Amino acid sequence: MSDDHMLYRIAGSFGRQSAMTTIGAKLTHVEPGRVVIELPHGDHVLQQNSFVHGGVIGMIADSACGYAALTVQTEDRTIVTSEYKINLLSPAVGERFVAEGRVVRAGRQLAVVQGDVFAINGAQRKHIAIMLATMTIIPKTGDMVD
Amino acid sequence: MSDDHMLYRIAGSFGRQSAMTTIGAKLTHVEPGRVVIELPHGDHVLQQNSFVHGGVIGMIADSACGYAALTVQTEDRTIVTSEYKINLLSPAVGERFVAEGRVVRAGRQLAVVQGDVFAINGAQRKHIAIMLATMTIIPKTGDMVD
Amino acid sequence: MSDDHMLYRIAGSFGRQSAMTTIGAKLTHVEPGRVVIELPHGDHVLQQNSFVHGGVIGMIADSACGYAALTVQTEDRTIVTSEYKINLLSPAVGERFVAEGRVVRAGRQLAVVQGDVFAINGAQRKHIAIMLATMTIIPKTGDMVD
Amino acid sequence: MSDDHMLYRIAGSFGRQSAMTTIGAKLTHVEPGRVVIELPHGDHVLQQNSFVHGGVIGMIADSACGYAALTVQTEDRTIVTSEYKINLLSPAVGERFVAEGRVVRAGRQLAVVQGDVFAINGAQRKHIAIMLATMTIIPKTGDMVD
Repeated sequence: MSDDHMLYRIAGSFGRQSAMTTIGAKLTHVEPGRVVIELPHGDHVLQQNSFVHGGVIGMIADSACGYAALTVQTEDRTIVTSEYKINLLSPAVGERFVAEGRVVRAGRQLAVVQGDVFAINGAQRKHIAIMLATMTIIPKTGDMVD
Repeated sequence: MSDDHMLYRIAGSFGRQSAMTTIGAKLTHVEPGRVVIELPHGDHVLQQNSFVHGGVIGMIADSACGYAALTVQTEDRTIVTSEYKINLLSPAVGERFVAEGRVVRAGRQLAVVQGDVFAINGAQRKHIAIMLATMTIIPKTGDMVD
Repeated sequence: MSDDHMLYRIAGSFGRQSAMTTIGAKLTHVEPGRVVIELPHGDHVLQQNSFVHGGVIGMIADSACGYAALTVQTEDRTIVTSEYKINLLSPAVGERFVAEGRVVRAGRQLAVVQGDVFAINGAQRKHIAIMLATMTIIPKTGDMVD
Repeated sequence: MSDDHMLYRIAGSFGRQSAMTTIGAKLTHVEPGRVVIELPHGDHVLQQNSFVHGGVIGMIADSACGYAALTVQTEDRTIVTSEYKINLLSPAVGERFVAEGRVVRAGRQLAVVQGDVFAINGAQRKHIAIMLATMTIIPKTGDMVD
């Protein structure tokens, strides 16, 4: 599909994810094989020590990985997360968090995607999480949206 | 620590996790080596096909695993998630979701914990996700809470 | 397929894996959804501290998981490992090592399998590793064997 | 430690791993934070379709990751693999296989390491596996070798 079409498709899908709205995440970049999602620090997504919850970091990384896989599919295919593994490298402290998904390999049935999350503090950018995810590529049917 | 003390400790910590309040998760069971967290279906935690977001399922499984590891620590130690891997077995469709964390092995530096998430629909209970997590055991210091 | 046929299929495939012969592993049990592989201690499969190499433990767990997934496929399908994650719980010390794979969920495209490895010392049996694996189910073609 | 000392330490440890000798793997590069291990194709490390066994690919990736973590430790510390996750991207077909481990983050208790395995065929180099591993850093005691 054209890059424009791809952008509309992914932005539309992202906009329908109420979980992303709830945590305050925004889609900020889409290109073939690579998607970026940002999350500003918010008082409603913390764990007990006032760091952003590791599971929330996992959510934005998973979404970035899934959409990265979607950028390299044809229109009649969609993506579901089969599994992911995330290493939390440092506490999620920062003004905002940038999750980047990059396709490592896209096959016929599966796509393998790497995710990285960075904490931004002023001019500083710290690598706080790394993800390896397997996405299943499935035919899109009837009332299914991306 | 006594079972009562353990319950207060974990319930207090859980109560301070604003991310759990935001998604609507509740701590429902604590025993040595095992913790259960429940999430009712909510319109604000969905992905684009109106299933509960896989990342949200990951959040409650991660929390159940972390607190399960905490149940077998002494009071001067706390737990941080080092990494987790989750396989999403089926779409998260249900009235509510039950995440159970069970300690597989607790060592001196690390605890390995298994998580399982079930979707509940009336009398039906379906296994929708399985997690394997590594928790780091660290000394509790100063202003750190669990 | 019949249980007998399944046993022949899996034993035949296992017999063609020169890597299993090299390390000394034996197929010891096959039933629908569950396969067991055993490895006697051997001086040629060690790491630098004379424990069995963690990667060798991973090999037998991966094979047990793959064959467990194969037990629940039709004859025209075969299995390839897509990914696995293993936690090494204790050093691999023992007279022999028993790896057990059990199918958690078998879908149309993927099977999720759990693996557990135990070290046997006389009457003692210690849980030394736990695996979570994703197997891809593919149509069997031409000169492909299981 | 000096780079020379590090090289001796790691080459010595690798030489004591009988499992590496058995499969035919060789240590080919050591620098701070990065280690490379090579495996020539061999008829004794195959699976049933004459590809190199996925578990053998996991072994060389795990070893490369473990030694990469060791390069950034002081002499009184050593490394044990806590867990790893590997995605097999393509069948392991080639004249030789190159596993590279690179430290992503080394903390006080844990090191997170990324591994990549490439199949070499003449001038071609194909990315066939990607690993994310967690290594535990432990004090070296008495008769323990690296």
